[in-house]
Amino acid sequence: MEQNQLKVKSLGIDTYRENIIYMRSDCHICTAEGFTALTRVVVQANGNDIVATLNVIESGLLQHDEAGLSVEAIKRLNVKEGDQIRIHHLKPVESIAFVRGKMYGKTFTEKQLSEIMRDIIKGRYSNVELAAFITACSGDNLSLDEIISLTKAMIGAGHKLLWTRPIVLDKHCIGGLPGNRTTPIVVSIIAAAGYYIPKTSSRAITSPAGTADVMEVITNINLDLKHIKKVVEIQNGCLAWGGSINLSPADDIIISVEKTLDVDSEGQMIASVLSKKAAAGSTHVVIDIPVGETAKVRTQEDAKRLEHNFKVVGEAVGLNVKSIVTDGTQPVGVGIGPSLEAMDVLSVLQNEPNAPRELKLRAVTLAGAMLDLVDSEHNMDGFGKALHILERGDAFEKFKSICVAQGAWKEPKLAQYSFDVKSLHEGVVTIINNRQLSKLAKLAGAPRSPSAGLQFFAPLHTKISTGDLLFRIWAETKGELEYAKEYLDTIPHLITIG
Amino acid sequence: MEQNQLKVKSLGIDTYRENIIYMRSDCHICTAEGFTALTRVVVQANGNDIVATLNVIESGLLQHDEAGLSVEAIKRLNVKEGDQIRIHHLKPVESIAFVRGKMYGKTFTEKQLSEIMRDIIKGRYSNVELAAFITACSGDNLSLDEIISLTKAMIGAGHKLLWTRPIVLDKHCIGGLPGNRTTPIVVSIIAAAGYYIPKTSSRAITSPAGTADVMEVITNINLDLKHIKKVVEIQNGCLAWGGSINLSPADDIIISVEKTLDVDSEGQMIASVLSKKAAAGSTHVVIDIPVGETAKVRTQEDAKRLEHNFKVVGEAVGLNVKSIVTDGTQPVGVGIGPSLEAMDVLSVLQNEPNAPRELKLRAVTLAGAMLDLVDSEHNMDGFGKALHILERGDAFEKFKSICVAQGAWKEPKLAQYSFDVKSLHEGVVTIINNRQLSKLAKLAGAPRSPSAGLQFFAPLHTKISTGDLLFRIWAETKGELEYAKEYLDTIPHLITIG
Repeated sequence: MEQNQLKVKSLGIDTYRENIIYMRSDCHICTAEGFTALTRVVVQANGNDIVATLNVIESGLLQHDEAGLSVEAIKRLNVKEGDQIRIHHLKPVESIAFVRGKMYGKTFTEKQLSEIMRDIIKGRYSNVELAAFITACSGDNLSLDEIISLTKAMIGAGHKLLWTRPIVLDKHCIGGLPGNRTTPIVVSIIAAAGYYIPKTSSRAITSPAGTADVMEVITNINLDLKHIKKVVEIQNGCLAWGGSINLSPADDIIISVEKTLDVDSEGQMIASVLSKKAAAGSTHVVIDIPVGETAKVRTQEDAKRLEHNFKVVGEAVGLNVKSIVTDGTQPVGVGIGPSLEAMDVLSVLQNEPNAPRELKLRAVTLAGAMLDLVDSEHNMDGFGKALHILERGDAFEKFKSICVAQGAWKEPKLAQYSFDVKSLHEGVVTIINNRQLSKLAKLAGAPRSPSAGLQFFAPLHTKISTGDLLFRIWAETKGELEYAKEYLDTIPHLITIG
Repeated sequence: MEQNQLKVKSLGIDTYRENIIYMRSDCHICTAEGFTALTRVVVQANGNDIVATLNVIESGLLQHDEAGLSVEAIKRLNVKEGDQIRIHHLKPVESIAFVRGKMYGKTFTEKQLSEIMRDIIKGRYSNVELAAFITACSGDNLSLDEIISLTKAMIGAGHKLLWTRPIVLDKHCIGGLPGNRTTPIVVSIIAAAGYYIPKTSSRAITSPAGTADVMEVITNINLDLKHIKKVVEIQNGCLAWGGSINLSPADDIIISVEKTLDVDSEGQMIASVLSKKAAAGSTHVVIDIPVGETAKVRTQEDAKRLEHNFKVVGEAVGLNVKSIVTDGTQPVGVGIGPSLEAMDVLSVLQNEPNAPRELKLRAVTLAGAMLDLVDSEHNMDGFGKALHILERGDAFEKFKSICVAQGAWKEPKLAQYSFDVKSLHEGVVTIINNRQLSKLAKLAGAPRSPSAGLQFFAPLHTKISTGDLLFRIWAETKGELEYAKEYLDTIPHLITIG
């Protein structure tokens, strides 16, 4: 047998994104190379290579000539049981020195950030190293120049879509506001108005649902580049998951660790958003910035700074960016969680009498701002135009056509278990803690369990009588419902009734 | 079967410090609780509990009523195959919010740091979260007040040794200088002089050897508290590994991740060093700060600041701390790596004619400073006294007695493979890159392979002829020797001969 070769054994161990290789402690490679548990190695087969972390087997789970691979590692390496793989030391990853430099107060250059992005995409950063990079970039640790460099580095590391139209629109919302699912409505209006809007969205980072999670309830969101092109060329718009087309592959990996840490820092966020817009071939972008004490952006001052930074970074990468500061003091729709938000979206698009009014108003405002941004005649009645398109049903028709073109049309479903939370007092709703609402929905299982989450019936200024239904928790399993209820007992100030 | 219970199956998978639990994707707990790969869970058995990360099994590796545990997890939980374990969701770790706060520019309070240390010790922080904590504390991110709070939090989280003597000495060297293995010599001199010096050392963090790694070549270093007390009461001193007695258990966990990241930030370092000294019951501490362009401390200015910070934090936790700034421009002994450094130590203690002079001089200087620090009569000839104790053989006798009292006396051995690096030029050695030397020794296998490392024969100002031996690389396996040689080819400026 050739040196450094072993036969693949599929152990069927799912370790999520992390590639794990299992090797016997007494196999000839471990012995010769001095490998021990957690050594990072390069695994090669069929012209592919991945970086994996070693777990050492001290039992009879493997034969002497076998190595196990985790489920994802087998997929990424494109091997099957019995195939030969070669295993080597991972050479020291030089770009990690730049991360250490940043930890010690140095400034990133664009070249350094490009190298870091390249190594991240190649899987050379362990989760621990990714966490260090994210933390080193957190808070106000990145200067505006560094954010521009990071954005360019992220764009350079992925694919870029090219369109035949001179104007390509896009939107983004700075999350943190439960149920603020305007995107599917905005895309439908803009596409119905005749503009290109090739929208790719992410899954939830720290919230109970991302637009991709919501759209997945209704249609297929795993479109490749060719499929996206086809849908947009026929329908003007799409509502796809960004992660499946590698527009910003480095960002997707970074986000997976940000999720674990439950952080999403400003510089990283600007770079993440704008790199994806630029890579998607957009020219004009509207950013929705909800401001509220428990939203992601807490003060008008923070919003102003963010607006400025988005504009400056946008210009540096060739994007015309306009920010809209909106009310972020309470949930927007009724639903919080993928399926429940999908139901809100459908009711607005179908102009149902009970559709969440605030969600509709926001979607029309954003779509109107986008129409104004590209309006060459400066008559600026974007809002009126957008409202008309929605109310006469054109947006819903467009939405359905887009979903069908993406390959599926499904109705959202309710979960099996629910729990009603009723008011113990009477009065008027004066404060809502959005963060606690989001956490509650997440503990109930959102977004992993699509029909889990909350329905919220007590917006600010609502008059409440004792026994009125404030919100309903939905969960797919009993365990998760109990878990959410346990948390509920610890947050007496979720809704303040004064 | 009771809800949330499974039977332990030992899969023999070594995942180092990280507890991993393996559960079938279709087992009743995964289904009921909504567990997926990487969910963090609490595992309970026999009154113990640990936190573990879930890997999901999609094959027949486990029966429906079984859960696998990694090697360390089985030890920590003290279970055997067939035992029942209970598995629950890990509740959100509240202290991680403080880490996020720090990332966003807030200041740690002592209470927050105490909670963080407590959760770290309980295993509630994943490696990703530990990396975020370390990075948030890196560079100059910690104020002096925060360093004091961190030190107190670390002391509060571990055991504390109490001694009957009013004076208890200790020393520490701010690493970064290959081969600077003064500790065993200093301890032997001080103990021979009649003072208590209960020395506990750490393993290497980012260097090719820590004092614990070196001492492990010669004697047993895994002493429990009782054993340490006994050795010190009879011999005045000991040379034990700090990790086995939980003097600063939080620090040991933090260091394991710092090692992966190859960082060791100032605030964290001061807290780490002084928390261990205070917990060891020390009253007087001498700190060796080598300064050089490629040492850990690079300028006299940095050394002055460090000296000041050590003094202030020391006072806050009741320690009399004196720093000695030393030359950090080149390796101290000949050997770099556990066994090779152990050989240097023994040759100095035995007053061999070829013993490394610089190592001897430094050890005597430090021991002298310690004697001066506790000298009530102010005659201040610590250096002379220390030299006398070493040269008349008392220090070696004391060293041997300490080792025997610790339970073993072994001779260091040379590795199987070596490679000589000879000069291609003639001239005088003008610059030595200590960081590259350390990295080379690490790639050759140090400290994991105790007899791996380097012997360095070309100190600054040495006259070199073409073909002279500059250094010798030692490795225990061919793979590691090749790996070190590969790196060697990439560092043409390791030694500058002008």
